[in-house]
Amino acid sequence: MNKNFSIPTLSELKDTRLRIQQFVHHTPVLTSTQIDKLAGAKLFFKCENFQKVGAFKFRGAINAVLQLSEEDRQRGVATHSSGNHAQALAMAAKMNGIKAYIVMPTSAPKVKSEAVAGYGAEIIWCEPNLAARESTLARVISKTGAVFIHPYDNYDVIYGQSTVAQELIEKYSDLDIIVAPVGGGGLLSGTALAANYANPTIKVIAAEPHGADDAYRSFKSGQLVPSTSPNTIADGLLTSLSPRTFSIIQQYVNDIYTVDDAAIITAMQLIWERMKIIIEPSSAVALAIILKNKEFFAHKKVGIILSGGNIDLITINSLLAITHKNN
Amino acid sequence: MNKNFSIPTLSELKDTRLRIQQFVHHTPVLTSTQIDKLAGAKLFFKCENFQKVGAFKFRGAINAVLQLSEEDRQRGVATHSSGNHAQALAMAAKMNGIKAYIVMPTSAPKVKSEAVAGYGAEIIWCEPNLAARESTLARVISKTGAVFIHPYDNYDVIYGQSTVAQELIEKYSDLDIIVAPVGGGGLLSGTALAANYANPTIKVIAAEPHGADDAYRSFKSGQLVPSTSPNTIADGLLTSLSPRTFSIIQQYVNDIYTVDDAAIITAMQLIWERMKIIIEPSSAVALAIILKNKEFFAHKKVGIILSGGNIDLITINSLLAITHKNN
Repeated sequence: MNKNFSIPTLSELKDTRLRIQQFVHHTPVLTSTQIDKLAGAKLFFKCENFQKVGAFKFRGAINAVLQLSEEDRQRGVATHSSGNHAQALAMAAKMNGIKAYIVMPTSAPKVKSEAVAGYGAEIIWCEPNLAARESTLARVISKTGAVFIHPYDNYDVIYGQSTVAQELIEKYSDLDIIVAPVGGGGLLSGTALAANYANPTIKVIAAEPHGADDAYRSFKSGQLVPSTSPNTIADGLLTSLSPRTFSIIQQYVNDIYTVDDAAIITAMQLIWERMKIIIEPSSAVALAIILKNKEFFAHKKVGIILSGGNIDLITINSLLAITHKNN
Repeated sequence: MNKNFSIPTLSELKDTRLRIQQFVHHTPVLTSTQIDKLAGAKLFFKCENFQKVGAFKFRGAINAVLQLSEEDRQRGVATHSSGNHAQALAMAAKMNGIKAYIVMPTSAPKVKSEAVAGYGAEIIWCEPNLAARESTLARVISKTGAVFIHPYDNYDVIYGQSTVAQELIEKYSDLDIIVAPVGGGGLLSGTALAANYANPTIKVIAAEPHGADDAYRSFKSGQLVPSTSPNTIADGLLTSLSPRTFSIIQQYVNDIYTVDDAAIITAMQLIWERMKIIIEPSSAVALAIILKNKEFFAHKKVGIILSGGNIDLITINSLLAITHKNN
């Protein structure tokens, strides 16, 4: 564990909330009597699938952009991403009238690259592997002087993500537990900070796909263990923890539970059918671990962060086809 | 037109709102910058897909049940329905500890009959045609003395449905137009009453599938013209106007627009993809008529009532398969 990072303070979290609130949606919290009955607990779903660009990622991106110096704003921002962070940063940059450079692998879904281009960002294509992404990004930054906004190993991004749980706890101050999914750990570490500052008796539990369980292994071993070949339907959670997120997670997260993809798909369909909302697979992992660990959650008031809703209809179609074949 | 029905007063609508508010969800209103851009108008979506039993129908059913005399409560309630009204009445009866008898055609989807049975209602099966439904219901009522709760030709039901628009207008008092789908007309007539009493300058426009356009034909001709063989994907809108609903609609609705099923499917997918919520085809008809009549709605503030979200995943799957084949 890297001890060189300073943990943010409560006032930094509160300042972030004030800074970004006019730019983000204050998303609703939904409940479902039927799912509560199945889970044996009282669940409060914080709907970041209704956030701008369809995911919590916009909160971190807008906060990072708003924290740029005037000089940095002139140079613009850059990142590599094929997913929600790309869209989030592109939109945040556009709202602030600054330039965004997004390195995307040629394998990125057309719908995502079109959305990024739609926000006026410049797309720089690269081969679909991490080495190509990083070297292409380095070239873009050296040429343009743009500021790299990492999708999660960045305190401004983590503070931004903390506002999801800040809003949730403000509305439901007596939660026993908050469950958040974990990929790179930006949302989870922000959630853990927010819960700890608001009320340290709230337990924070992470939900991770079994096929991408680097956070589980890092947390249990006390050593940052990156994923080697992650494989899960929860495509937003393929990334590995970073030094900054791991450091916060070690101190403030109570435990990490994992589930397999079948349980994730079941939970996702349950939310679609009973709650009438569309969530992406990464968002279903939290409910999946609750349904798998009913004793731990029994009769508790549990906040669940639904991280996003960016799943295309073709994917829904294939998932349903698989499920119906198996039934 | 039957002139024998007395139109309810503002105080009746307000009383209804107070009577049912502890039983119903005060559903959220969502907006979408992207859909606004496509429509060229500012749209406010009132999400009755998040209502209990997944549709606005619960409001009318609970109001009707709460208005029963003690003697009627002893005898219970009855209706025939294969859809949302069956579930709504079954749940409303269960919440009040009274008996519900639901006549269902043997063709009703298993998921719907299971839901009705799950609320403790007694299901009486019949052949899947209107004559069998009505004669079976008559037999049940004569045997049990249960009170027939018509799905829409019933003022208590209409007052209940009016609370959707009451909530919407309370939150957004400066709407120019409200669009509601029309099948039997319970939601539409309730909406028209609520808008008229709150602010008569709000226009109320009905949205109807071209394949079940009895309301359009009745409205234009001034004569109640029932549907003969309605055919549309919007399966909640197959029913025809009734004397009570037609009477209100004639007086308080500004116009009725129709669209074909292809436009309904496009609007439904747009809402799924951009708003991340699941709605049933009947709910998409309102957006479909707005996208088809852009000049009329241009730059207006428009409330849209999303009537329900009860579409099963198998249906979603088939719809997507059709769309992708056609693309």
